[in-house]
Amino acid sequence: MELLSASKAFGGSQRVYRHESTACSCPMTFAIYLPHQAEEGPVPVLWYLSGLTCTHQNVMDKGEYRAAAAANGIAIICPDTSPRGEDVPDEPGNWQFGSGAGFYLDATQAPYAANYRMESYIRDELPELVARNFPLDMSRQGIFGHSMGGHGAITLALKNPERYRSVSAFAPISQPSTADWSRPAFEKYLGPDEAGWRAYDSTLLIADGHRLKELLVDQGGADGFLEEGLRPQLLEIACATAGIPLQLTLREGYDHSYNFVSTFMAQHIAWHAERLFA
Amino acid sequence: MELLSASKAFGGSQRVYRHESTACSCPMTFAIYLPHQAEEGPVPVLWYLSGLTCTHQNVMDKGEYRAAAAANGIAIICPDTSPRGEDVPDEPGNWQFGSGAGFYLDATQAPYAANYRMESYIRDELPELVARNFPLDMSRQGIFGHSMGGHGAITLALKNPERYRSVSAFAPISQPSTADWSRPAFEKYLGPDEAGWRAYDSTLLIADGHRLKELLVDQGGADGFLEEGLRPQLLEIACATAGIPLQLTLREGYDHSYNFVSTFMAQHIAWHAERLFA
Repeated sequence: MELLSASKAFGGSQRVYRHESTACSCPMTFAIYLPHQAEEGPVPVLWYLSGLTCTHQNVMDKGEYRAAAAANGIAIICPDTSPRGEDVPDEPGNWQFGSGAGFYLDATQAPYAANYRMESYIRDELPELVARNFPLDMSRQGIFGHSMGGHGAITLALKNPERYRSVSAFAPISQPSTADWSRPAFEKYLGPDEAGWRAYDSTLLIADGHRLKELLVDQGGADGFLEEGLRPQLLEIACATAGIPLQLTLREGYDHSYNFVSTFMAQHIAWHAERLFA
Repeated sequence: MELLSASKAFGGSQRVYRHESTACSCPMTFAIYLPHQAEEGPVPVLWYLSGLTCTHQNVMDKGEYRAAAAANGIAIICPDTSPRGEDVPDEPGNWQFGSGAGFYLDATQAPYAANYRMESYIRDELPELVARNFPLDMSRQGIFGHSMGGHGAITLALKNPERYRSVSAFAPISQPSTADWSRPAFEKYLGPDEAGWRAYDSTLLIADGHRLKELLVDQGGADGFLEEGLRPQLLEIACATAGIPLQLTLREGYDHSYNFVSTFMAQHIAWHAERLFA
Protein backbone atom coordinates (compact mmCIF):
# COMPACT_ATOMS: atom_id res chain seq x y z
CA MET A 1 0.00 0.00 0.00
CA GLU A 2 1.18 3.47 -0.83
CA LEU A 3 -0.09 6.34 1.32
CA LEU A 4 -1.21 9.15 -1.02
CA SER A 5 -2.47 11.58 1.63
CA ALA A 6 -3.22 11.83 5.33
CA SER A 7 -5.00 14.68 7.08
CA LYS A 8 -6.33 15.07 10.60
CA ALA A 9 -10.10 15.58 10.71
CA PHE A 10 -12.53 15.55 13.63
CA GLY A 11 -9.82 14.11 15.87
CA GLY A 12 -9.14 11.16 13.56
CA SER A 13 -7.25 10.63 10.33
CA GLN A 14 -8.56 10.84 6.78
CA ARG A 15 -6.21 8.91 4.51
CA VAL A 16 -6.02 7.82 0.89
CA TYR A 17 -4.06 4.75 -0.22
CA ARG A 18 -3.19 3.11 -3.52
CA HIS A 19 -2.40 -0.57 -3.92
CA GLU A 20 -1.97 -3.16 -6.64
CA SER A 21 -5.25 -5.04 -6.89
CA THR A 22 -5.20 -8.72 -7.78
CA ALA A 23 -8.94 -8.82 -8.31
CA CYS A 24 -8.95 -5.88 -10.73
CA SER A 25 -5.46 -6.36 -12.20
CA CYS A 26 -4.67 -2.66 -11.82
CA PRO A 27 -3.75 -0.16 -9.12
CA MET A 28 -6.76 0.76 -7.00
CA THR A 29 -7.27 3.76 -4.73
CA PHE A 30 -9.40 3.94 -1.60
CA ALA A 31 -10.07 6.38 1.25
CA ILE A 32 -10.21 5.37 4.90
CA TYR A 33 -11.25 7.49 7.85
CA LEU A 34 -9.92 6.23 11.16
CA PRO A 35 -11.59 7.86 14.17
CA HIS A 36 -9.47 8.69 17.21
CA GLN A 37 -10.90 5.63 18.98
CA ALA A 38 -8.80 3.48 16.61
CA GLU A 39 -5.71 4.60 18.53
CA GLU A 40 -6.97 2.63 21.53
CA GLY A 41 -8.11 -0.53 19.80
CA PRO A 42 -10.01 -2.02 16.86
CA VAL A 43 -13.09 -0.14 15.68
CA PRO A 44 -16.05 -1.32 13.58
CA VAL A 45 -15.98 -0.77 9.83
CA LEU A 46 -18.61 0.86 7.68
CA TRP A 47 -18.15 0.48 3.91
CA TYR A 48 -19.43 3.30 1.74
CA LEU A 49 -19.98 2.49 -1.94
CA SER A 50 -20.24 5.45 -4.29
CA GLY A 51 -22.39 6.08 -7.33
CA LEU A 52 -21.83 6.37 -11.08
CA THR A 53 -18.96 8.67 -12.17
CA CYS A 54 -17.53 8.87 -8.64
CA THR A 55 -14.12 7.90 -7.32
CA HIS A 56 -13.25 7.46 -3.63
CA GLN A 57 -12.98 11.24 -3.48
CA ASN A 58 -16.52 12.53 -4.03
CA VAL A 59 -17.87 11.30 -0.72
CA MET A 60 -14.60 12.18 0.99
CA ASP A 61 -15.08 15.80 -0.14
CA LYS A 62 -18.85 16.13 0.06
CA GLY A 63 -20.27 13.33 2.21
CA GLU A 64 -19.76 14.98 5.63
CA TYR A 65 -19.30 11.59 7.28
CA ARG A 66 -16.32 12.31 9.51
CA ALA A 67 -18.14 14.08 12.36
CA ALA A 68 -20.55 11.18 12.84
CA ALA A 69 -17.84 8.55 12.33
CA ALA A 70 -15.77 10.22 15.06
CA ALA A 71 -18.74 10.63 17.38
CA ASN A 72 -19.61 6.94 17.02
CA GLY A 73 -16.09 5.51 16.84
CA ILE A 74 -16.46 3.84 13.46
CA ALA A 75 -13.98 3.61 10.56
CA ILE A 76 -15.40 4.46 7.13
CA ILE A 77 -13.85 3.01 3.99
CA CYS A 78 -14.66 4.49 0.59
CA PRO A 79 -13.45 2.39 -2.37
CA ASP A 80 -13.36 3.48 -5.99
CA THR A 81 -16.28 2.53 -8.24
CA SER A 82 -14.35 0.65 -10.94
CA PRO A 83 -10.91 -0.41 -12.10
CA ARG A 84 -9.06 2.32 -13.95
CA GLY A 85 -5.99 2.85 -16.10
CA GLU A 86 -4.61 2.75 -19.60
CA ASP A 87 -4.70 -1.04 -19.69
CA VAL A 88 -8.31 -1.28 -18.49
CA PRO A 89 -10.93 -1.54 -21.28
CA ASP A 90 -13.29 1.40 -21.15
CA GLU A 91 -15.78 3.44 -23.16
CA PRO A 92 -14.58 7.01 -22.68
CA GLY A 93 -17.52 9.40 -22.66
CA ASN A 94 -20.02 6.75 -21.51
CA TRP A 95 -20.71 7.55 -17.85
CA GLN A 96 -22.89 4.48 -17.39
CA PHE A 97 -20.26 1.90 -18.33
CA GLY A 98 -16.58 1.25 -17.71
CA SER A 99 -14.57 3.70 -15.62
CA GLY A 100 -16.70 4.98 -12.76
CA ALA A 101 -19.41 2.44 -13.50
CA GLY A 102 -18.30 -0.95 -12.18
CA PHE A 103 -21.74 -1.77 -10.74
CA TYR A 104 -20.07 -3.86 -7.99
CA LEU A 105 -20.19 -7.02 -10.08
CA ASP A 106 -17.69 -9.56 -11.42
CA ALA A 107 -17.77 -9.31 -15.20
CA THR A 108 -17.80 -12.57 -17.13
CA GLN A 109 -17.41 -11.22 -20.67
CA ALA A 110 -14.23 -10.38 -22.60
CA PRO A 111 -12.53 -7.96 -22.50
CA TYR A 112 -14.05 -6.77 -19.20
CA ALA A 113 -13.70 -9.94 -17.12
CA ALA A 114 -9.99 -9.37 -16.59
CA ASN A 115 -10.45 -6.14 -14.64
CA TYR A 116 -14.08 -5.45 -13.79
CA ARG A 117 -14.27 -7.62 -10.73
CA MET A 118 -15.55 -5.12 -8.20
CA GLU A 119 -17.56 -7.67 -6.24
CA SER A 120 -14.46 -9.76 -5.52
CA TYR A 121 -12.51 -6.61 -4.80
CA ILE A 122 -15.02 -5.17 -2.29
CA ARG A 123 -16.00 -8.50 -0.76
CA ASP A 124 -12.63 -10.25 -0.53
CA GLU A 125 -9.48 -8.39 -1.50
CA LEU A 126 -9.99 -5.00 0.11
CA PRO A 127 -11.29 -6.38 3.44
CA GLU A 128 -8.26 -8.68 3.68
CA LEU A 129 -5.94 -5.76 2.91
CA VAL A 130 -7.43 -3.36 5.46
CA ALA A 131 -7.73 -6.05 8.13
CA ARG A 132 -3.96 -6.60 7.87
CA ASN A 133 -3.10 -2.91 7.97
CA PHE A 134 -5.50 -1.06 10.26
CA PRO A 135 -6.98 -1.52 13.76
CA LEU A 136 -10.37 -2.70 12.53
CA ASP A 137 -12.84 -5.04 14.18
CA MET A 138 -13.76 -7.10 11.13
CA SER A 139 -16.42 -8.94 13.13
CA ARG A 140 -18.36 -5.67 13.10
CA GLN A 141 -18.91 -4.57 9.50
CA GLY A 142 -21.72 -2.58 7.97
CA ILE A 143 -22.21 -1.34 4.43
CA PHE A 144 -24.02 1.54 2.77
CA GLY A 145 -23.90 3.50 -0.44
CA HIS A 146 -25.45 5.97 -2.83
CA SER A 147 -27.28 5.26 -6.08
CA MET A 148 -25.18 2.61 -7.91
CA GLY A 149 -23.41 2.23 -4.55
CA GLY A 150 -26.74 1.67 -2.82
CA HIS A 151 -27.34 -1.14 -5.28
CA GLY A 152 -23.87 -2.46 -4.46
CA ALA A 153 -24.41 -2.27 -0.71
CA ILE A 154 -27.78 -4.03 -0.75
CA THR A 155 -26.71 -6.80 -3.15
CA LEU A 156 -23.51 -7.47 -1.22
CA ALA A 157 -25.44 -7.57 2.06
CA LEU A 158 -28.08 -9.91 0.61
CA LYS A 159 -25.38 -12.33 -0.54
CA ASN A 160 -23.22 -12.05 2.58
CA PRO A 161 -25.59 -11.74 5.55
CA GLU A 162 -23.00 -13.20 7.91
CA ARG A 163 -20.53 -10.50 6.95
CA TYR A 164 -22.53 -7.30 7.17
CA ARG A 165 -24.41 -6.59 10.37
CA SER A 166 -26.16 -3.57 8.90
CA VAL A 167 -27.00 -2.18 5.48
CA SER A 168 -28.51 1.09 4.32
CA ALA A 169 -28.71 3.14 1.15
CA PHE A 170 -29.26 6.62 -0.20
CA ALA A 171 -31.34 6.58 -3.38
CA PRO A 172 -30.28 3.07 -4.46
CA ILE A 173 -30.80 1.66 -7.94
CA SER A 174 -33.46 -0.86 -6.96
CA GLN A 175 -33.65 -3.01 -10.08
CA PRO A 176 -30.64 -2.47 -12.37
CA SER A 177 -31.50 -5.48 -14.52
CA THR A 178 -34.51 -3.64 -15.96
CA ALA A 179 -33.44 0.03 -15.76
CA ASP A 180 -32.43 1.76 -18.97
CA TRP A 181 -29.24 3.22 -17.52
CA SER A 182 -27.86 -0.13 -16.33
CA ARG A 183 -29.13 -2.77 -18.76
CA PRO A 184 -26.49 -2.03 -21.43
CA ALA A 185 -23.73 -2.26 -18.81
CA PHE A 186 -25.08 -5.54 -17.44
CA GLU A 187 -25.17 -6.98 -20.96
CA LYS A 188 -21.58 -5.96 -21.70
CA TYR A 189 -20.23 -7.12 -18.34
CA LEU A 190 -22.35 -10.26 -17.91
CA GLY A 191 -23.48 -11.30 -21.38
CA PRO A 192 -26.94 -11.57 -22.90
CA ASP A 193 -28.20 -14.38 -20.65
CA GLU A 194 -30.18 -12.46 -18.06
CA ALA A 195 -30.20 -15.40 -15.66
CA GLY A 196 -26.65 -14.36 -14.79
CA TRP A 197 -27.80 -10.85 -13.92
CA ARG A 198 -30.00 -11.95 -11.01
CA ALA A 199 -27.02 -12.09 -8.65
CA TYR A 200 -26.58 -8.34 -9.12
CA ASP A 201 -30.14 -7.14 -8.67
CA SER A 202 -31.54 -6.52 -5.18
CA THR A 203 -35.15 -7.24 -6.06
CA LEU A 204 -34.27 -10.47 -7.89
CA LEU A 205 -31.91 -11.64 -5.14
CA ILE A 206 -34.80 -11.21 -2.71
CA ALA A 207 -37.12 -13.06 -5.10
CA ASP A 208 -34.54 -15.86 -5.19
CA GLY A 209 -34.63 -16.24 -1.43
CA HIS A 210 -31.89 -13.96 -0.13
CA ARG A 211 -32.83 -12.07 3.00
CA LEU A 212 -31.80 -9.14 5.19
CA LYS A 213 -32.67 -8.63 8.84
CA GLU A 214 -33.67 -5.06 8.00
CA LEU A 215 -32.91 -2.27 5.56
CA LEU A 216 -32.78 1.53 5.88
CA VAL A 217 -33.29 3.59 2.71
CA ASP A 218 -33.66 7.33 2.17
CA GLN A 219 -34.76 8.70 -1.17
CA GLY A 220 -35.01 12.31 -2.34
CA GLY A 221 -38.45 13.28 -3.60
CA ALA A 222 -37.03 15.73 -6.16
CA ASP A 223 -34.43 13.24 -7.44
CA GLY A 224 -34.34 13.43 -11.23
CA PHE A 225 -33.57 9.70 -11.47
CA LEU A 226 -36.39 8.64 -9.16
CA GLU A 227 -38.95 7.32 -11.61
CA GLU A 228 -36.82 5.85 -14.38
CA GLY A 229 -33.56 4.78 -12.76
CA LEU A 230 -34.11 4.26 -9.03
CA ARG A 231 -37.73 3.13 -8.54
CA PRO A 232 -37.78 2.51 -4.78
CA GLN A 233 -41.29 1.09 -5.07
CA LEU A 234 -39.76 -2.06 -6.64
CA LEU A 235 -37.58 -2.51 -3.56
CA GLU A 236 -40.58 -1.82 -1.37
CA ILE A 237 -42.63 -4.53 -3.08
CA ALA A 238 -39.75 -7.01 -2.94
CA CYS A 239 -39.16 -6.40 0.77
CA ALA A 240 -42.88 -6.51 1.60
CA THR A 241 -43.30 -9.79 -0.26
CA ALA A 242 -40.31 -11.32 1.50
CA GLY A 243 -41.09 -9.91 4.93
CA ILE A 244 -37.89 -7.84 5.09
CA PRO A 245 -38.41 -4.82 7.36
CA LEU A 246 -37.68 -1.83 5.12
CA GLN A 247 -37.53 1.67 6.60
CA LEU A 248 -37.92 3.73 3.41
CA THR A 249 -38.38 7.48 3.73
CA LEU A 250 -39.13 9.83 0.86
CA ARG A 251 -37.41 13.13 1.64
CA GLU A 252 -39.44 15.86 0.03
CA GLY A 253 -37.51 18.37 -2.08
CA TYR A 254 -34.15 16.58 -2.00
CA ASP A 255 -32.30 15.81 -5.22
CA HIS A 256 -29.75 13.11 -6.13
CA SER A 257 -26.67 15.10 -5.08
CA TYR A 258 -24.44 15.02 -2.04
CA ASN A 259 -26.58 17.80 -0.57
CA PHE A 260 -29.13 15.04 -0.07
CA VAL A 261 -26.62 12.39 1.03
CA SER A 262 -24.81 14.67 3.50
CA THR A 263 -28.10 15.80 5.06
CA PHE A 264 -28.94 12.24 6.12
CA MET A 265 -25.40 10.92 6.54
CA ALA A 266 -25.24 11.35 10.33
CA GLN A 267 -28.59 9.59 10.77
CA HIS A 268 -27.41 6.62 8.71
CA ILE A 269 -24.12 6.35 10.57
CA ALA A 270 -25.88 6.47 13.95
CA TRP A 271 -28.28 3.76 12.73
CA HIS A 272 -25.35 1.57 11.71
CA ALA A 273 -23.53 2.28 14.98
CA GLU A 274 -26.49 0.97 17.00
CA ARG A 275 -26.26 -2.29 15.12
CA LEU A 276 -22.46 -2.56 14.89
CA PHE A 277 -22.04 -2.10 18.64
CA ALA A 278 -25.04 -4.29 19.57
CA MET B 1 -28.95 37.74 -10.81
CA GLU B 2 -28.91 34.42 -12.61
CA LEU B 3 -29.58 31.28 -10.57
CA LEU B 4 -26.94 28.69 -11.53
CA SER B 5 -28.00 25.93 -9.14
CA ALA B 6 -30.29 25.23 -6.20
CA SER B 7 -30.30 22.12 -4.04
CA LYS B 8 -32.08 21.31 -0.80
CA ALA B 9 -29.69 20.59 2.06
CA PHE B 10 -30.30 20.19 5.79
CA GLY B 11 -33.82 21.51 5.34
CA GLY B 12 -32.65 24.73 3.66
CA SER B 13 -31.51 25.69 0.20
CA GLN B 14 -27.94 25.80 -1.13
CA ARG B 15 -27.86 28.07 -4.16
CA VAL B 16 -25.31 29.56 -6.54
CA TYR B 17 -25.89 32.82 -8.40
CA ARG B 18 -24.03 34.83 -11.01
CA HIS B 19 -24.46 38.60 -11.47
CA GLU B 20 -22.79 41.49 -13.27
CA SER B 21 -20.56 43.21 -10.75
CA THR B 22 -20.11 46.95 -10.98
CA ALA B 23 -17.26 46.93 -8.47
CA CYS B 24 -15.28 44.27 -10.33
CA SER B 25 -16.49 45.08 -13.88
CA CYS B 26 -17.09 41.41 -14.65
CA PRO B 27 -19.62 38.68 -13.85
CA MET B 28 -19.20 37.39 -10.30
CA THR B 29 -20.44 34.14 -8.78
CA PHE B 30 -21.41 33.52 -5.16
CA ALA B 31 -23.01 30.77 -3.09
CA ILE B 32 -25.72 31.35 -0.50
CA TYR B 33 -27.15 28.88 1.95
CA LEU B 34 -30.59 29.84 3.23
CA PRO B 35 -31.71 27.83 6.25
CA HIS B 36 -35.34 26.77 6.53
CA GLN B 37 -35.89 29.55 9.09
CA ALA B 38 -35.57 32.05 6.22
CA GLU B 39 -39.00 30.88 5.00
CA GLU B 40 -40.53 32.45 8.11
CA GLY B 41 -38.62 35.73 8.17
CA PRO B 42 -35.24 37.43 7.87
CA VAL B 43 -32.24 35.53 9.24
CA PRO B 44 -28.78 36.79 10.25
CA VAL B 45 -25.97 36.64 7.70
CA LEU B 46 -22.54 35.12 8.12
CA TRP B 47 -20.02 35.94 5.38
CA TYR B 48 -17.40 33.30 4.63
CA LEU B 49 -14.32 34.46 2.74
CA SER B 50 -12.22 31.76 1.11
CA GLY B 51 -8.48 31.35 0.71
CA LEU B 52 -6.01 31.50 -2.17
CA THR B 53 -6.93 29.48 -5.30
CA CYS B 54 -10.52 28.98 -4.10
CA THR B 55 -13.79 29.95 -5.74
CA HIS B 56 -17.17 30.03 -3.96
CA GLN B 57 -17.28 26.30 -4.48
CA ASN B 58 -14.50 24.89 -2.31
CA VAL B 59 -16.17 25.67 1.00
CA MET B 60 -19.56 24.79 -0.46
CA ASP B 61 -18.22 21.30 -1.23
CA LYS B 62 -15.89 20.75 1.73
CA GLY B 63 -16.72 23.24 4.47
CA GLU B 64 -19.55 21.26 6.13
CA TYR B 65 -21.27 24.47 7.22
CA ARG B 66 -24.87 23.67 6.33
CA ALA B 67 -25.75 21.51 9.34
CA ALA B 68 -24.67 24.23 11.80
CA ALA B 69 -26.19 27.02 9.71
CA ALA B 70 -29.52 25.18 9.74
CA ALA B 71 -29.31 24.38 13.45
CA ASN B 72 -28.65 28.04 14.26
CA GLY B 73 -30.89 29.65 11.63
CA ILE B 74 -28.16 31.65 9.90
CA ALA B 75 -27.62 32.30 6.19
CA ILE B 76 -24.06 31.76 4.95
CA ILE B 77 -22.78 33.61 1.90
CA CYS B 78 -19.60 32.48 0.16
CA PRO B 79 -18.26 34.94 -2.45
CA ASP B 80 -15.54 34.25 -4.97
CA THR B 81 -11.96 35.29 -4.11
CA SER B 82 -11.28 37.55 -7.12
CA PRO B 83 -12.69 38.90 -10.34
CA ARG B 84 -12.36 36.47 -13.24
CA GLY B 85 -12.73 36.34 -16.99
CA GLU B 86 -11.00 36.87 -20.30
CA ASP B 87 -11.05 40.65 -19.87
CA VAL B 88 -9.61 40.57 -16.34
CA PRO B 89 -5.81 40.99 -16.14
CA ASP B 90 -4.22 37.93 -14.58
CA GLU B 91 -0.98 36.01 -14.24
CA PRO B 92 -1.95 32.47 -15.21
CA GLY B 93 0.06 29.95 -13.24
CA ASN B 94 0.72 32.34 -10.34
CA TRP B 95 -1.56 31.12 -7.53
CA GLN B 96 -0.62 34.01 -5.25
CA PHE B 97 -1.78 36.79 -7.56
CA GLY B 98 -4.68 37.57 -9.87
CA SER B 99 -7.45 35.01 -10.31
CA GLY B 100 -8.16 33.32 -6.98
CA ALA B 101 -5.96 35.80 -5.13
CA GLY B 102 -7.82 39.09 -4.77
CA PHE B 103 -6.72 39.54 -1.13
CA TYR B 104 -9.99 41.42 -0.41
CA LEU B 105 -8.49 44.78 -1.32
CA ASP B 106 -9.23 47.57 -3.81
CA ALA B 107 -6.31 47.71 -6.22
CA THR B 108 -5.00 51.16 -7.09
CA GLN B 109 -2.52 50.21 -9.81
CA ALA B 110 -3.11 49.74 -13.54
CA PRO B 111 -4.15 47.43 -15.04
CA TYR B 112 -5.59 45.83 -11.89
CA ALA B 113 -7.55 48.77 -10.46
CA ALA B 114 -10.36 48.32 -12.99
CA ASN B 115 -11.36 44.88 -11.72
CA TYR B 116 -9.59 43.91 -8.51
CA ARG B 117 -11.90 45.76 -6.12
CA MET B 118 -12.84 42.94 -3.81
CA GLU B 119 -13.14 45.16 -0.73
CA SER B 120 -15.82 47.30 -2.40
CA TYR B 121 -17.47 44.18 -3.75
CA ILE B 122 -17.66 42.36 -0.40
CA ARG B 123 -18.35 45.45 1.71
CA ASP B 124 -20.80 47.34 -0.50
CA GLU B 125 -22.03 45.75 -3.70
CA LEU B 126 -22.75 42.18 -2.65
CA PRO B 127 -24.49 43.13 0.65
CA GLU B 128 -26.75 45.53 -1.26
CA LEU B 129 -27.54 42.84 -3.81
CA VAL B 130 -28.38 40.10 -1.30
CA ALA B 131 -30.33 42.50 0.95
CA ARG B 132 -32.62 43.24 -2.01
CA ASN B 133 -33.07 39.61 -2.99
CA PHE B 134 -33.16 37.41 0.10
CA PRO B 135 -34.86 37.40 3.52
CA LEU B 136 -31.77 38.54 5.42
CA ASP B 137 -31.53 40.58 8.60
CA MET B 138 -28.72 42.92 7.55
CA SER B 139 -28.59 44.39 11.05
CA ARG B 140 -27.12 41.05 12.14
CA GLN B 141 -24.01 40.29 10.10
CA GLY B 142 -20.90 38.35 11.03
CA ILE B 143 -17.85 37.48 8.97
CA PHE B 144 -15.27 34.71 8.94
CA GLY B 145 -12.82 33.13 6.57
CA HIS B 146 -9.89 30.83 5.93
CA SER B 147 -6.27 31.80 5.29
CA MET B 148 -6.39 34.73 2.82
CA GLY B 149 -10.10 34.84 3.68
CA GLY B 150 -9.26 35.05 7.38
CA HIS B 151 -7.15 38.08 6.55
CA GLY B 152 -10.09 39.47 4.59
CA ALA B 153 -12.57 38.86 7.40
CA ILE B 154 -10.42 40.44 10.11
CA THR B 155 -9.43 43.51 8.06
CA LEU B 156 -13.03 44.13 6.97
CA ALA B 157 -14.26 43.77 10.55
CA LEU B 158 -11.55 46.11 11.86
CA LYS B 159 -12.56 48.78 9.35
CA ASN B 160 -16.33 48.27 9.70
CA PRO B 161 -17.01 47.53 13.37
CA GLU B 162 -20.56 48.86 13.12
CA ARG B 163 -21.29 46.40 10.30
CA TYR B 164 -20.00 43.09 11.63
CA ARG B 165 -21.16 41.96 15.05
CA SER B 166 -18.76 39.02 15.09
CA VAL B 167 -15.56 37.96 13.36
CA SER B 168 -13.52 34.77 13.40
CA ALA B 169 -10.91 33.06 11.27
CA PHE B 170 -9.35 29.72 10.44
CA ALA B 171 -5.59 30.01 9.95
CA PRO B 172 -5.65 33.66 8.83
CA ILE B 173 -2.75 35.41 7.14
CA SER B 174 -1.86 37.67 10.05
CA GLN B 175 0.51 40.13 8.41
CA PRO B 176 0.30 39.98 4.60
CA SER B 177 2.35 43.16 4.18
CA THR B 178 5.49 41.33 5.33
CA ALA B 179 4.82 37.72 4.25
CA ASP B 180 6.66 36.40 1.22
CA TRP B 181 3.55 34.94 -0.41
CA SER B 182 1.58 38.22 -0.31
CA ARG B 183 4.13 41.05 -0.64
CA PRO B 184 4.46 40.72 -4.44
CA ALA B 185 0.66 40.82 -4.79
CA PHE B 186 0.35 43.87 -2.56
CA GLU B 187 3.00 45.67 -4.59
CA LYS B 188 1.27 44.90 -7.89
CA TYR B 189 -2.23 45.76 -6.62
CA LEU B 190 -1.33 48.73 -4.41
CA GLY B 191 1.98 50.08 -5.69
CA PRO B 192 5.38 50.34 -4.01
CA ASP B 193 4.38 52.83 -1.30
CA GLU B 194 3.82 50.55 1.67
CA ALA B 195 1.86 53.20 3.54
CA GLY B 196 -1.05 52.26 1.32
CA TRP B 197 -0.77 48.63 2.37
CA ARG B 198 -1.61 49.29 6.01
CA ALA B 199 -5.36 49.32 5.32
CA TYR B 200 -5.08 45.67 4.25
CA ASP B 201 -3.05 44.25 7.11
CA SER B 202 -4.75 43.20 10.37
CA THR B 203 -1.75 43.83 12.60
CA LEU B 204 -1.11 47.28 11.11
CA LEU B 205 -4.79 48.26 11.23
CA ILE B 206 -4.71 47.44 14.93
CA ALA B 207 -1.47 49.42 15.34
CA ASP B 208 -3.22 52.31 13.62
CA GLY B 209 -6.03 52.28 16.17
CA HIS B 210 -8.70 50.03 14.69
CA ARG B 211 -10.36 47.77 17.23
CA LEU B 212 -12.54 44.68 17.57
CA LYS B 213 -14.69 43.71 20.52
CA GLU B 214 -13.24 40.23 20.34
CA LEU B 215 -11.75 37.75 17.89
CA LEU B 216 -11.89 33.96 17.57
CA VAL B 217 -9.07 32.21 15.70
CA ASP B 218 -8.24 28.54 15.22
CA GLN B 219 -4.92 27.49 13.73
CA GLY B 220 -3.70 24.02 12.79
CA GLY B 221 -0.45 23.02 14.46
CA ALA B 222 0.66 20.93 11.47
CA ASP B 223 -0.18 23.66 8.95
CA GLY B 224 2.64 23.90 6.41
CA PHE B 225 2.13 27.67 6.07
CA LEU B 226 2.17 28.32 9.82
CA GLU B 227 5.64 29.76 10.30
CA GLU B 228 6.25 31.64 7.07
CA GLY B 229 2.86 32.68 5.77
CA LEU B 230 0.37 32.77 8.64
CA ARG B 231 2.32 33.67 11.84
CA PRO B 232 -0.53 33.87 14.35
CA GLN B 233 1.92 35.15 16.97
CA LEU B 234 1.94 38.51 15.13
CA LEU B 235 -1.82 38.73 15.52
CA GLU B 236 -1.48 37.66 19.14
CA ILE B 237 1.02 40.44 19.88
CA ALA B 238 -1.08 43.05 18.08
CA CYS B 239 -4.25 42.05 19.95
CA ALA B 240 -2.47 41.89 23.31
CA THR B 241 -0.92 45.33 22.78
CA ALA B 242 -4.29 46.81 21.83
CA GLY B 243 -6.30 45.00 24.48
CA ILE B 244 -8.41 43.08 21.95
CA PRO B 245 -9.64 39.82 23.48
CA LEU B 246 -8.29 37.13 21.16
CA GLN B 247 -9.31 33.51 21.62
CA LEU B 248 -6.55 31.78 19.63
CA THR B 249 -6.31 28.00 19.78
CA LEU B 250 -3.55 25.94 18.22
CA ARG B 251 -5.09 22.67 17.08
CA GLU B 252 -2.43 20.01 17.27
CA GLY B 253 -1.95 17.86 14.19
CA TYR B 254 -4.30 19.78 11.89
CA ASP B 255 -3.11 20.99 8.48
CA HIS B 256 -4.24 23.89 6.27
CA SER B 257 -6.95 21.96 4.42
CA TYR B 258 -10.70 21.82 4.71
CA ASN B 259 -10.27 18.79 6.96
CA PHE B 260 -9.13 21.36 9.52
CA VAL B 261 -11.73 23.99 8.62
CA SER B 262 -14.66 21.55 8.59
CA THR B 263 -13.64 20.11 11.96
CA PHE B 264 -14.05 23.48 13.68
CA MET B 265 -16.76 24.92 11.42
CA ALA B 266 -19.69 24.08 13.71
CA GLN B 267 -17.93 25.65 16.71
CA HIS B 268 -17.29 28.86 14.80
CA ILE B 269 -20.86 29.09 13.55
CA ALA B 270 -22.24 28.51 17.06
CA TRP B 271 -19.90 31.23 18.38
CA HIS B 272 -21.14 33.67 15.73
CA ALA B 273 -24.76 32.68 16.42
CA GLU B 274 -24.42 33.63 20.08
CA ARG B 275 -23.30 37.10 19.05
CA LEU B 276 -25.63 37.55 16.08
CA PHE B 277 -28.72 36.72 18.13
CA ALA B 278 -27.57 38.65 21.22
